[in-house]
Amino acid sequence: MMAPPLKLGIAGLGTVGAELVRLLRANRDQLGGRCGRLIHIAGVCARDRGRGRGVDLSGYAWFDDPVTLATERKVDVFVELIGGEEGAARASVEAALGAGTHVVTANKALLATHGAALAAMAEQSGVALNYEAAVAAAIPVVKVLREGLAGNRMTRVSGILNGTCNYILTVMEREQREFDDVLAEAQALGYAEADPEFDIGGHDTAHKLAILTSLAFATRPALGDVYIEGITKVTLHDIRAVDQLGYRIKLLGVAQDTGNGIEQRVHPTLVSKSSPIADVGGAFNAIVIEADAAGSLMLEGQGAGAAPTVSAVISDIVDIACGGKRAVFGTQASDLATYQRARMRAHEGGYYIGLKAHDRPGAVAGIAKAMADQSISLESIIQRADPDEAGDVAPDGESRSMPVALVTHETNEAAIRTALETIRADGHIAEPPHMIRIEQI
Amino acid sequence: MMAPPLKLGIAGLGTVGAELVRLLRANRDQLGGRCGRLIHIAGVCARDRGRGRGVDLSGYAWFDDPVTLATERKVDVFVELIGGEEGAARASVEAALGAGTHVVTANKALLATHGAALAAMAEQSGVALNYEAAVAAAIPVVKVLREGLAGNRMTRVSGILNGTCNYILTVMEREQREFDDVLAEAQALGYAEADPEFDIGGHDTAHKLAILTSLAFATRPALGDVYIEGITKVTLHDIRAVDQLGYRIKLLGVAQDTGNGIEQRVHPTLVSKSSPIADVGGAFNAIVIEADAAGSLMLEGQGAGAAPTVSAVISDIVDIACGGKRAVFGTQASDLATYQRARMRAHEGGYYIGLKAHDRPGAVAGIAKAMADQSISLESIIQRADPDEAGDVAPDGESRSMPVALVTHETNEAAIRTALETIRADGHIAEPPHMIRIEQI
Repeated sequence: MMAPPLKLGIAGLGTVGAELVRLLRANRDQLGGRCGRLIHIAGVCARDRGRGRGVDLSGYAWFDDPVTLATERKVDVFVELIGGEEGAARASVEAALGAGTHVVTANKALLATHGAALAAMAEQSGVALNYEAAVAAAIPVVKVLREGLAGNRMTRVSGILNGTCNYILTVMEREQREFDDVLAEAQALGYAEADPEFDIGGHDTAHKLAILTSLAFATRPALGDVYIEGITKVTLHDIRAVDQLGYRIKLLGVAQDTGNGIEQRVHPTLVSKSSPIADVGGAFNAIVIEADAAGSLMLEGQGAGAAPTVSAVISDIVDIACGGKRAVFGTQASDLATYQRARMRAHEGGYYIGLKAHDRPGAVAGIAKAMADQSISLESIIQRADPDEAGDVAPDGESRSMPVALVTHETNEAAIRTALETIRADGHIAEPPHMIRIEQI
Repeated sequence: MMAPPLKLGIAGLGTVGAELVRLLRANRDQLGGRCGRLIHIAGVCARDRGRGRGVDLSGYAWFDDPVTLATERKVDVFVELIGGEEGAARASVEAALGAGTHVVTANKALLATHGAALAAMAEQSGVALNYEAAVAAAIPVVKVLREGLAGNRMTRVSGILNGTCNYILTVMEREQREFDDVLAEAQALGYAEADPEFDIGGHDTAHKLAILTSLAFATRPALGDVYIEGITKVTLHDIRAVDQLGYRIKLLGVAQDTGNGIEQRVHPTLVSKSSPIADVGGAFNAIVIEADAAGSLMLEGQGAGAAPTVSAVISDIVDIACGGKRAVFGTQASDLATYQRARMRAHEGGYYIGLKAHDRPGAVAGIAKAMADQSISLESIIQRADPDEAGDVAPDGESRSMPVALVTHETNEAAIRTALETIRADGHIAEPPHMIRIEQI
């Protein structure tokens, strides 16, 4: 005998909400067979009732106000697809949790900003707060960290978490084109937003990283403590230079337990071309998790789009239908630690430095000395540019500049910053250096 | 307030069992925080009580008989790490399920052989039967298929599921060595068993594939219907020839819904060097899942070893500690369909054919005609061997043979077999052809 159906209230009927309704209907019996109970839609809610959505909503109770839907007594699970960390999304999720209604959301901003408080509310009410779709869409990384690796201590989580950035970097390399050019094309094709700053500035990645950090290290989400550099300064010259050295540039979000606090950083990153994450191209996302028992685990898949997002949302709904109780961030909310930031100046790793040195006696020697004075040893140095990019003549005609690419052995960020400041102050370089961190994955 | 502890009975104290005891003890508090209850060991069982295992077992009740442990009233979860599809493993798992005790097992043979009956028993008793460690150790592929992709219809699951085979193929390519040579070294180093047939013959992969097929397609496990070819006939010559054509050889297990039954096949496979699975080297495992909503998802990680296996076992235990009820194969046992085999003769795909043609007029023309007569069109043909492998002089000195490598466009297995039989019967080739299927992943 089947258990009574699980009744959903769905707030937000954009492309994701409409696809969710469509798939719940198309796969009704299959989903019923998963847990021995059917999944029903008890009500839906959006701002504009009249808008065409390509899916028949006439059979469902309509709500104008998501808070009303969230607290409607016959709703077992409130599905929040409104978006944004404040406003209707926050109000309705809080109302649902307060009313003892399970919540499924795709809202990364809400979780990254208010996750700890929402987790406490959910546990207080004894309900689920599931958010698989908030990070990397179809890739079940929340489930893998929260459940699949429950027996592990995580040491590092690194991810390509923004498809727009990965698409741009992939096309820059594959087609040997400059950033602005590829961005403009991506915008024209709809792969990048008209206002692309949230993606290319690294902020989208930072939101997702803040959630992954909490899951991996049992800390309260600390979005404000994420170090963020976007991809806007990555040049084709950098991509060519690192290619010669065996690397590729990816925008990574990295959360790492340093033993002296946890680093959360988002920045363009050199990864060895022999590492699996280097081969993740186009709009795909990937996450590499390093853990004591499991070793290294990589998940790669569709990180955006309506259907991949709905795949995650339905998984969250089915988890509730099947019962069981998981702590929101994998650990009871009251046991989550306050995030202890590892300072970026203490970051240890290798670095790529792209410089335009003045082509005159002593410039390279001065650069090398500034590095040596900080005890930075070099893995490689390329002083000659590739033929397409011969040294530039300065506007005043006085001196030519010559590209120099350096890769350091492991050092720390304070030493690098000091060395680069010295190089700049000594007048050896014609423009600000490009410094890109290397990650051994 | 914490719920009462979850009490385990652990049967089988080899390297996995000992590592499980060690990790449960080391991570006691972290695991307690996952679900708000501690995990205790109520009893352990193995054949030889006196054997040193590097872990202190003196605090746990000892059982000589796993069936007694499995039915011990104070045991909530019976953890079966004995192995084998019959004998003590089967008897004790059946006893536990019959007694209403949850079961966690790492036993692929048991699940692949008796999975449907055990699933029915588990559901009858209302208990869990979890087996994440049975497939690909640390890679949570059972959870991903059973839960993470619950909203999807799967179309194909392909995996590198045996680390020994992948290690051998990787070393053959990387070090340009022959199969026997690499196998002998792998045995000497302990990477391959003294009797390697279960691995290199493809049987280990077939067991895991049978389980994945059930999870992906909601069918009862049908190990006996898996088509199996091992890697023993893969030669360095094949590896070199396909390398020139842009491919790499992997032992894959593939389960695919053809619309006319489900293929389950294990065989050496050509995968494009540009596909992510081609880069999975050494002893790593990887699974690519293709699904309607999620798109393509790849999971890569440690597929063997004590700690990676224990990572999966603990995940299964924590799932039970947190409650909830999942169907054993993702769908209620009574709803699992009988497996409908797609015949291998109907398999559609591209093929690589490696031949040693007699070096005389008409041989290559005859080969090409035999293919054309079966409406097989060729994507590429290489008639000249690489310099290291000039044509052989036949022992009788009569004729030389010349390597020919063909890659076909999509065709079907019946056509290929007919063409190869014709080529052989016409006397165009000096030794049996090497036929390797191509998978577009």
